[in-house]
Amino acid sequence: MLIVHVHVHVNPESVAAFIEATIENAQNSIREPGIARFDVMQQRDDPTRFVLVEVYRDEKATEAHRQTAHYVKWREAVASMMSEPRTRETFSNLFPEDKEW
Amino acid sequence: MLIVHVHVHVNPESVAAFIEATIENAQNSIREPGIARFDVMQQRDDPTRFVLVEVYRDEKATEAHRQTAHYVKWREAVASMMSEPRTRETFSNLFPEDKEW
Repeated sequence: MLIVHVHVHVNPESVAAFIEATIENAQNSIREPGIARFDVMQQRDDPTRFVLVEVYRDEKATEAHRQTAHYVKWREAVASMMSEPRTRETFSNLFPEDKEW
Repeated sequence: MLIVHVHVHVNPESVAAFIEATIENAQNSIREPGIARFDVMQQRDDPTRFVLVEVYRDEKATEAHRQTAHYVKWREAVASMMSEPRTRETFSNLFPEDKEW
């Protein structure tokens, strides 16, 4: 699997709107055939910080995701909510194995 | 859910041993009743960096995990493999909801 962690730091006044837009994006993304998981989490000691854990079946699935209407809507909606540019890291799964995702 | 991201930076010569010890720990941890997921991932652009994504049902489950034989074995096995102290962040799930983990 190709796992992407997206780190987002949001302006305090945008936290509620960011959560709403990001849950909507996750609900749509998880229906894409190339996406196994699309988890959204909020940092406990700083509620303006979020990580999206996006689990793709392959590289093509990441490209397909970026062309969906829900991703484009999310990207445009949250652009002005971020207090700094978001960052990303990519990983491969060691556990569990591919068939378990 | 209480989600813990553990960031580990391993000495290059210890990568294979770290992977073996960490997969064994994950295989045992996922059997704990308070643990919903225990994912192990390796960073693609730096294979000496790992993230453990540990999804606990509550705080008590984190305490129970730290008292298991497999956790203690892992902690002792990997102590000398790390090139710097490991770090952790804790999160709450926004998506999916608790019942979906």
